[in-house]
Amino acid sequence: MATSLMNHQIRLAARPTGLPTRANWQVTDEPVPALADGDVLIKVLVLSLDPAMRGWMNEGKSYIPPVGIGEVMRAGGIGVVIDSKNPAYQVGDHVTGTMGVQTHALVPASEMRRNGLAKIDAKAGSLTQWLNVLGMPGMTGYFGLMDVGQPKAGETLVVSGAAGAVGQTVGQLAKILGLRAVGIAGGKAKCDWVVDELGFDACIDYKAGPIKDALRQACPNGVDIYFDNVGGEILDTVLTRINRKARIVICGAISQYNNTTPVKGPSNYMSLLVNRARMEGIVVFDYADRYPQAIAEMAGYLRDGRMKSKEDVVDGIDTFPETLLKLFNGENFGKLVLKVADA
Amino acid sequence: MATSLMNHQIRLAARPTGLPTRANWQVTDEPVPALADGDVLIKVLVLSLDPAMRGWMNEGKSYIPPVGIGEVMRAGGIGVVIDSKNPAYQVGDHVTGTMGVQTHALVPASEMRRNGLAKIDAKAGSLTQWLNVLGMPGMTGYFGLMDVGQPKAGETLVVSGAAGAVGQTVGQLAKILGLRAVGIAGGKAKCDWVVDELGFDACIDYKAGPIKDALRQACPNGVDIYFDNVGGEILDTVLTRINRKARIVICGAISQYNNTTPVKGPSNYMSLLVNRARMEGIVVFDYADRYPQAIAEMAGYLRDGRMKSKEDVVDGIDTFPETLLKLFNGENFGKLVLKVADA
Repeated sequence: MATSLMNHQIRLAARPTGLPTRANWQVTDEPVPALADGDVLIKVLVLSLDPAMRGWMNEGKSYIPPVGIGEVMRAGGIGVVIDSKNPAYQVGDHVTGTMGVQTHALVPASEMRRNGLAKIDAKAGSLTQWLNVLGMPGMTGYFGLMDVGQPKAGETLVVSGAAGAVGQTVGQLAKILGLRAVGIAGGKAKCDWVVDELGFDACIDYKAGPIKDALRQACPNGVDIYFDNVGGEILDTVLTRINRKARIVICGAISQYNNTTPVKGPSNYMSLLVNRARMEGIVVFDYADRYPQAIAEMAGYLRDGRMKSKEDVVDGIDTFPETLLKLFNGENFGKLVLKVADA
Repeated sequence: MATSLMNHQIRLAARPTGLPTRANWQVTDEPVPALADGDVLIKVLVLSLDPAMRGWMNEGKSYIPPVGIGEVMRAGGIGVVIDSKNPAYQVGDHVTGTMGVQTHALVPASEMRRNGLAKIDAKAGSLTQWLNVLGMPGMTGYFGLMDVGQPKAGETLVVSGAAGAVGQTVGQLAKILGLRAVGIAGGKAKCDWVVDELGFDACIDYKAGPIKDALRQACPNGVDIYFDNVGGEILDTVLTRINRKARIVICGAISQYNNTTPVKGPSNYMSLLVNRARMEGIVVFDYADRYPQAIAEMAGYLRDGRMKSKEDVVDGIDTFPETLLKLFNGENFGKLVLKVADA
């Protein structure tokens, strides 16, 4: 029984303007309640920190409701079942789902579906890989590339945030499919890793200055697919290099999430007309029915070494407020993971 | 023989900044040369004035090369063959093609294809209808809606520039297909005409103030297809009302063509992500192979009264510099046509 356990939580105290600070968060400790029929109690092991979290902190309609003031901050993660009154889950099962930024997650039967709770096969990949290429970022990259990007061998793909969780998946998958893969990332270390370790054909360091000339050199045949995680000036520059019938996958716009001024729309969007090109959004949840087959495919690539992954693991739930900021200043190197407890 | 004929021409003298003025044009008169083998000489009757012309006056790569300084301004139009050394064309044939802003067009055999020269069936519609619903604007509306917009009965379509050449085609076609059609146009007279004569379900007067509230009222079920001819604030506002899996057809951005500041990109483009929506460009020339079947379909709608058309005909080639501006201040009511000569 887990009734004497304390749950340590980080809650949204106030909506941020610009970058979130400590003042936006509230730390609470409360006892884990007794389990009702159907409940599952999970000890949280690792949490996924994602750019989308910044959006969840804002008021207003989006693809999911915002986190309410006073609520535990939403976060996907992986944990281990430590108590269960639900026949579908046994103590010791590893599960993925919406854990929240807390040490313990109690999921009632009625919330299982909305939570996205699911058992994982801890042998298919490490726990951090289950948050990366086998998790939401991997699924986002997979379906964004496959369904929205519609890749064809011989084409050129460009992906921003190339060293990030989604970017590493997208570029490696493009290489497996026979495309030229060009990354955009911040700093020489990330760019070197993307080329040397992940096997991208080129990677452009956006911190070294405007990307225009480097993009032209890296994409001698133009750009057929641009997988955009960043928005802003980079999106605008890539729009000047797209080919006829190019596909631009809108996955994120991390450069704009902490704006205190209005979002910068892509001034060069009329390139879509000139090039009969398409810009289309992807939300991974739409593909939930197809996760199992995609995970199996990705696990195969991990096994045979055609896909690598990198996670940037920071230890300690109480570092959450500062760790989250690593995403927005580009400090994280690989998928950003917050370690909450030892497995 | 036509060798003593004089050709009266309007040439691009200088590239404009912002709205073109008289200083951007040069009027020339030159004798029509003797015909070589394969040549066709056409007396120009009517010319199509289109927003795209503003783009052709700019330097730089687009979907077709710019008009060169000193060249006769490019314009589509309709004329009658008055001399021919080409067996495919007889004196008296009515033809459509790239006439240029001039009284006479001499088309050599080698240029026929690039010119787009083709005979028209003057019984299928009036000459001005052949520049409107049966011409490039009609084809743009047809393929933009059908192929890019992918309309389904019961959906809601919004089209800007609703009283213009493309807009009137798109909205009427949407009604024929069983969609709710909502126009956006400038001024009460145009809006009334769009609803009362063309049968749109509603039309929003953008000159009456911000369209936000009116758009919400006119589209109680949101927007499934937005056919955009204008860009700017209107595009941004419609982006706030789109449904899941919406299609935004990028056909033009007339609000931005005379900018002396950078184009305003759509700040709300992340609505594409939230709604898994798509924004895609249309260039009519890609569909040239399918014009005949589309023209036949549209001619049928004209015949049976399901489609109406309105042209705004201005008389006199020398009015061209001022007449063109009617497009950019929204003065034209219906497809803008320049009459060059009597049929």
